[in-house]
Amino acid sequence: MKITQDANKAILKELNPEHKVRIALDAMGGDYGPSVVVEGALLAAAEYGQSVELVLVGNSRMIDSECERHKLGTPPFEIMHTTETVGMSENAIRAYRTKKNSSLTVSLDLQKKGKVSATVSAGHTGAVMTHSLFLLGRLSGVHRPAIAVVLPTEKDKVVVVDVGANPDCKAHHMYQFGVMGSVYASVIHAKKNPKVGLLSIGEESSKGNELTLDTHKLFTKSNLNFNGNIEGRDILTGKCDVVVCDGFVGNVILKFAESVGGFIRSQTKRQVGKNLISNLGALLIRPAMRRVREKMDYAEYGGAPLLGIDGICIVCHGGSSAKAIKNAIGVAAVMAADKLNLKIKKHLEANGNLSNGATKDGKQTSIDQADHQMDSINEG
Amino acid sequence: MKITQDANKAILKELNPEHKVRIALDAMGGDYGPSVVVEGALLAAAEYGQSVELVLVGNSRMIDSECERHKLGTPPFEIMHTTETVGMSENAIRAYRTKKNSSLTVSLDLQKKGKVSATVSAGHTGAVMTHSLFLLGRLSGVHRPAIAVVLPTEKDKVVVVDVGANPDCKAHHMYQFGVMGSVYASVIHAKKNPKVGLLSIGEESSKGNELTLDTHKLFTKSNLNFNGNIEGRDILTGKCDVVVCDGFVGNVILKFAESVGGFIRSQTKRQVGKNLISNLGALLIRPAMRRVREKMDYAEYGGAPLLGIDGICIVCHGGSSAKAIKNAIGVAAVMAADKLNLKIKKHLEANGNLSNGATKDGKQTSIDQADHQMDSINEG
Repeated sequence: MKITQDANKAILKELNPEHKVRIALDAMGGDYGPSVVVEGALLAAAEYGQSVELVLVGNSRMIDSECERHKLGTPPFEIMHTTETVGMSENAIRAYRTKKNSSLTVSLDLQKKGKVSATVSAGHTGAVMTHSLFLLGRLSGVHRPAIAVVLPTEKDKVVVVDVGANPDCKAHHMYQFGVMGSVYASVIHAKKNPKVGLLSIGEESSKGNELTLDTHKLFTKSNLNFNGNIEGRDILTGKCDVVVCDGFVGNVILKFAESVGGFIRSQTKRQVGKNLISNLGALLIRPAMRRVREKMDYAEYGGAPLLGIDGICIVCHGGSSAKAIKNAIGVAAVMAADKLNLKIKKHLEANGNLSNGATKDGKQTSIDQADHQMDSINEG
Repeated sequence: MKITQDANKAILKELNPEHKVRIALDAMGGDYGPSVVVEGALLAAAEYGQSVELVLVGNSRMIDSECERHKLGTPPFEIMHTTETVGMSENAIRAYRTKKNSSLTVSLDLQKKGKVSATVSAGHTGAVMTHSLFLLGRLSGVHRPAIAVVLPTEKDKVVVVDVGANPDCKAHHMYQFGVMGSVYASVIHAKKNPKVGLLSIGEESSKGNELTLDTHKLFTKSNLNFNGNIEGRDILTGKCDVVVCDGFVGNVILKFAESVGGFIRSQTKRQVGKNLISNLGALLIRPAMRRVREKMDYAEYGGAPLLGIDGICIVCHGGSSAKAIKNAIGVAAVMAADKLNLKIKKHLEANGNLSNGATKDGKQTSIDQADHQMDSINEG
């Protein structure tokens, strides 16, 4: 299951070679650092060819040694040496203040200076969000950047937004999540007019909490293709292309979803026990189960973009595989090539009155603002 | 997997025959009405014997015909005839106002008059909650009744509260959910000092939304065995015996959890496809998978009690099996025999200052109050 669907591949292939997308890759992020990131970069180079140019930022000695391991003469990417790394459990704001040469800061700084169009990191979500806010700022018109993930469904894939950046929201933030999620789904899943659902506790417009009741009214007035409330049980049915929720609910659901596969697996093992026939069954069905697991693994869908940043940033799961890194690079390239941020801005402008909390100029978030937003979010 | 664990069975067996528990059973509730409820009552009679007396409330002609189907001479329960039924998608408050002889109203009225100690219904959650609030009122000291469910975990079972009654909460409501969930877990799972977790988006006390940050402080001061924040991924690990969340988050998680099993099943079928070996594997592993499914089915755990009602009410899933009805009867009997409500009151009194929003006298909720609470909850 690849995020880079045919539509996305087509976009990448059609790119004018003179307008190839340059992407900075934080080589030190994630639980495995360069060993997985370099392999992901190699897969990306093989799959996307000339349309994507990569700059790997990190400890060049470690990157070189990975290149040697893969018996590369000239690696198909640039290397930018830097010594500092933001640890997976490090305080994001302190890291930003003290590690001016971290691979994450340098990767984003390349984007700020216009040297690359996107940044991909498997560093921790809180750190990537904080560093992006400080270095790139918010997209003009966007009040609160949000984190989106793609989940599989019975039909197509679904974009869920926000999954952790905003634990407390107002309706106008949710409206913007709807717009950003919609544009994201239209770009990466080639959906013409994505159906947007509002996650609530009943389908009727009268069901929900104060936030979803207010949001429902706003969505009804908006230019979104609003499909009404959807319940927890409908996220995976594919009823909607985009599911909007506040960052608290989205984060709880996402982490719960991550845990269910493992739980069912361990329960199945327990029930199979020492029964010979069940064990034979388990053995024979294993390849099919592995494919199901891959399909369920949201890391395979190309990481989570930080929507609403004045730039393009993708956070990959800390435990990402090389394939997940490669997919994230593909998503970043498509987002850049398809001018996702320009589309978000246009969409917001067309319904400007609904974003009444938005700042006029989204440039450079103050440390205080980001501090407030980041303090409460999960850094894991 | 039965809710009536050894500990619960022991309680039921030890009951003084003169103090047997009488329970009203709404025979018309649920998707299947008397056909499943009567069968559940028969299973209960067989399993709990003399310690539980059942009164089936509903259309006696339909109940009789079910008894005939089971070739019963004298049924092991009383029958109380009533003609009206609250439909599964009916407006709860309108039904309460217009159907004074519904099986649900009559079942609860028996409890109000002291003729039974508990009521079990597979009617819709919103209706059971509304009718209970109007007829029995809140337990003295309780500000907001809440709905609890039991989920399986890697270790023991976990009580999750609230799963839908309170979409918007304050910290002192959450504190009371913690107390009620704790007492419930101690009664039905025979846990001495249940570990209580607060569902949030990071383990650190600084992570969460405004509600969980406030609640964390209250929990820390309380007499609960507070285990700190837990994340979505830890609900099923068995890290806690009780998970507290607001009714919006709990409802979304519960419905999402209900849908995951079916999703994985359909994905597995798709991956198995026409491959002969995979199909053979699927066939051989089927009995083990069925046991996993049963274990995952929260309806099997004896329904969802409405905690904080001045009485004992259990709502079963609309699609409950006879076994689920039987288990719910067992849970209701244990709750009554073990004086759950008295324990909740004592617990709340011991930390009265933490429930600063609680009313002094919980009797009889006004229609306006209940209207407000019920309007926003899911009636499905």
